[in-house]
Amino acid sequence: MTGRTNRVAVVGAGQTAYGALPHPPRALLRQALFEALGSVDHGLSAEDVGEGYLATLGFGGWQIGNPASLLAEELGRPGLPVSHVENACASGSTGLRQAHHALRSGACDVALVAGVEKMTDQPSARRRFWLGVSGETEWERLAGLTFAGVYALLAERYLHERHLSPDVLGAVAVKNHAHGAMNPLAHLRKPVTLDQHRAAPRVADPLGLYDCCPVSDGAAVVVLAREEVARRYTDTPVWIEGSGGGSDYLALQDRTSLTTLPASRKAAEEAFRHAPFSREKVQLAELHDCFTIAELLALEDTGLVSPGEAPKATLEGRTRIGGSLPVNPSGGLKSKGHPLGATGVGQVVEVFHQLRKEAGPRQVQGAERALAHNVGGSGATALVHLFGV
Amino acid sequence: MTGRTNRVAVVGAGQTAYGALPHPPRALLRQALFEALGSVDHGLSAEDVGEGYLATLGFGGWQIGNPASLLAEELGRPGLPVSHVENACASGSTGLRQAHHALRSGACDVALVAGVEKMTDQPSARRRFWLGVSGETEWERLAGLTFAGVYALLAERYLHERHLSPDVLGAVAVKNHAHGAMNPLAHLRKPVTLDQHRAAPRVADPLGLYDCCPVSDGAAVVVLAREEVARRYTDTPVWIEGSGGGSDYLALQDRTSLTTLPASRKAAEEAFRHAPFSREKVQLAELHDCFTIAELLALEDTGLVSPGEAPKATLEGRTRIGGSLPVNPSGGLKSKGHPLGATGVGQVVEVFHQLRKEAGPRQVQGAERALAHNVGGSGATALVHLFGV
Repeated sequence: MTGRTNRVAVVGAGQTAYGALPHPPRALLRQALFEALGSVDHGLSAEDVGEGYLATLGFGGWQIGNPASLLAEELGRPGLPVSHVENACASGSTGLRQAHHALRSGACDVALVAGVEKMTDQPSARRRFWLGVSGETEWERLAGLTFAGVYALLAERYLHERHLSPDVLGAVAVKNHAHGAMNPLAHLRKPVTLDQHRAAPRVADPLGLYDCCPVSDGAAVVVLAREEVARRYTDTPVWIEGSGGGSDYLALQDRTSLTTLPASRKAAEEAFRHAPFSREKVQLAELHDCFTIAELLALEDTGLVSPGEAPKATLEGRTRIGGSLPVNPSGGLKSKGHPLGATGVGQVVEVFHQLRKEAGPRQVQGAERALAHNVGGSGATALVHLFGV
Repeated sequence: MTGRTNRVAVVGAGQTAYGALPHPPRALLRQALFEALGSVDHGLSAEDVGEGYLATLGFGGWQIGNPASLLAEELGRPGLPVSHVENACASGSTGLRQAHHALRSGACDVALVAGVEKMTDQPSARRRFWLGVSGETEWERLAGLTFAGVYALLAERYLHERHLSPDVLGAVAVKNHAHGAMNPLAHLRKPVTLDQHRAAPRVADPLGLYDCCPVSDGAAVVVLAREEVARRYTDTPVWIEGSGGGSDYLALQDRTSLTTLPASRKAAEEAFRHAPFSREKVQLAELHDCFTIAELLALEDTGLVSPGEAPKATLEGRTRIGGSLPVNPSGGLKSKGHPLGATGVGQVVEVFHQLRKEAGPRQVQGAERALAHNVGGSGATALVHLFGV
């Protein structure tokens, strides 16, 4: 039960580019598997894998449910025990948590977590499906509230309570686009200025176009191994040093505040409870910024900055690469993209490369401890994982 | 890693009636939770629960995805780490396996596994959805093959290879209906004769009406606890003595045989590998009989009878209550009903009551060791769990 025993390592990680891609979901999954298996320094045989988790909301277009066995098929290992995991936009990190549990239970030595989503080129009935899987249906979606509208309510209240202008949201967008412009796998690889943010078309006021993540296709895969066997696969494992989960009422109307996500707070508390380092020691974070406001909420809810400090930390540039706490060096959901089931797994791919000093031009210098934070819906579920080398 | 250490107990179990019910899915979940919590002999506080798993394919009608937090809400414990698990008709047992991993990992002391499905009173678009979650979509559903048609192909080949008449399927139906007639929570509580089976309308030849499970609503919940704390909750825990998972190609066309489900074989092998008893010691089994043919396949694939023995064992009455190996004393999916996500959890509810000698008129005398087997789709995934007292 302590953080230092019975640990689990990330020994491989890979992903596709995120974007509006021509590939069907199986091809995305196959490519991410190829990249992840290829990243295992000393090689990995499909036979070594003991359990697999496939995170996806709808797999995309054709196979609506029961997709888990496709992970075994594409791995070339039919027979593998596999599970399909779905916690809306937090599906990927939920799969990570379940694999972490499985490995720590001793059920197997190596597990795979895959996330995939095919969101573009869908028929309109299927596009409506996405709306039914993120927010709450009875009191939100059927009343006409879009998912951007849900986060707009959070943003409006946040700016009002703190007497802030939307430029603080713009600072998040400008930063994450600057980061994403350095990520060859990002969906939106272009810088954005504060003026562009101000002038952007409204999506759901106060959120404009540059406050919203794009609609992306993509897949990501990580290979996890128990401490006992990790060095068979790599000399530079990245350790999972904490896992936390939390939940909340599905509908906003049932919650007591619009300016904090208790699910994130609970997840962070659990993750840090047994971790070998405290919040102050985290050197980079991948936070769930489906909308710019979400990054500000996450900074405080995870405890990475003190209550009330998120806007100041952002405006002062502390959360930029080069700042004291770089947030979303990958570009985040905002710029890297948000292929729902893949997102939480893709965050770990970024952390893996950052902590191994393989992140190229967006490398966070000296980073040895990282946090990944992933939210389902508007905070119905959230997960926090901690990593170290 | 041995079967006797670090065990997990079932300390509570409850379910709704299965059937065409007027209740919305939340109400079904709430009732099953109420029954399960009420069954914990020394009481259980919601605060004791450390992790929750919600098994469902579509939750039913309104909330298409992201339903996991509803389990926390209905438990009265918002904040609980929760996951939505989906492996088609094997969702419930997949949740059980994940909870088993979580408890054995030491992540928490008590976990809940809930399964729920609302299948009746759905709009036609939603009914079509069920077809997209069970079989394979590209090569089966879009080519016009129904799910009953998939199992009809298995049945046709089975009868042909073994030179059997459909009366062997009838023997399964007659038995399971006789069992279900004694189960006050079963969907179809009426005996069926072999003549009725023979004369029944065809669904997908050779499968007639009495070869097919009904379309059911329902929910089931089990409470699991680590060995260290189990006796706080009950003096008569039911131990999970093995958990196994397997998978296979999603589409029938990719498989090498139509008369065995390798996913079931792999699941059984893993479950028995570390178990404290062998196949010969199992005294009752809940097997996945979505169609009558599936029970015959499962009897041999789990190794409960020797290869080729399933028809003989069935025709001789060995699998009846009172026989040497009672199968589906609950009535099985065939008669008890099959509310997809609830099914695998409901099997454990039956095992819990049987091994505690609480099963009333359908009690299997002296039963101390049981097996539960749950299949996703036509065998893309399968799970086997072993239980003992």
